[in-house]
Amino acid sequence: MTYDDQNIFARILRNELPAIKVYEDEYVLAFMDIMPQADGHTLVIPKTPAVTLLDLPPDAAAYTIQIVQKIAKAIEKALGAEGIVLMQLSGTAAGQTVPHVHFHLIPSSVHELGKHAAQLGDQEKIKTLAEKIKAAL
Amino acid sequence: MTYDDQNIFARILRNELPAIKVYEDEYVLAFMDIMPQADGHTLVIPKTPAVTLLDLPPDAAAYTIQIVQKIAKAIEKALGAEGIVLMQLSGTAAGQTVPHVHFHLIPSSVHELGKHAAQLGDQEKIKTLAEKIKAAL
Repeated sequence: MTYDDQNIFARILRNELPAIKVYEDEYVLAFMDIMPQADGHTLVIPKTPAVTLLDLPPDAAAYTIQIVQKIAKAIEKALGAEGIVLMQLSGTAAGQTVPHVHFHLIPSSVHELGKHAAQLGDQEKIKTLAEKIKAAL
Repeated sequence: MTYDDQNIFARILRNELPAIKVYEDEYVLAFMDIMPQADGHTLVIPKTPAVTLLDLPPDAAAYTIQIVQKIAKAIEKALGAEGIVLMQLSGTAAGQTVPHVHFHLIPSSVHELGKHAAQLGDQEKIKTLAEKIKAAL
């Protein structure tokens, strides 16, 4: 699939748009979803330009999933999450809204999930949650 | 978390229970979900005993996600899936029902998903879908 380098995550990666970051290294960025389905909803994205998981080079997928694990453990520790939902949507038919591959980490119960992108979360609260997650890394 | 080697996926891995397999190698098994949320719903599991993604050794996670990609591409090709939902539930609070880490690959739209495990799917239809996916690998 053709990659649009003006998508919002590409712009976040270039620091053209703000994000509440919890982790960053040479290959991966993790930041808070600003329209969270639950408190602590975090996104993990490879820096490699790819639209879906199917487009992502396997070595980038292999590295990213290990950071997903690292962030999931920090969410569990920081927020006392009893469960964590990992969701990765490939294609608009699957509900993907931003055309840069991203992994959702959503604390707690899938049965309690709000509808994604229905409304903007409380940004101050999100920043506080981000600090807790960062401190647990 | 303590691993229960009598869980159904552990028993499938030991061939004590049947499964409609689409892929198997030394480290990973992929098979059809018999209570599918959509046609072509496939599970990918590492052979490493681990309850959740948080417990899985990073190298096993890295290998498994690459097989997840491989199976996702086969599902796309075989079934003409427009989108694919990857879901991985860690912990009963997140909706995990079998205590062996597993990745769900669900073709098409998240908005069309049936409730998981609500009812057994048409097993013959599932076998036919499995053959198509295998042929596309």
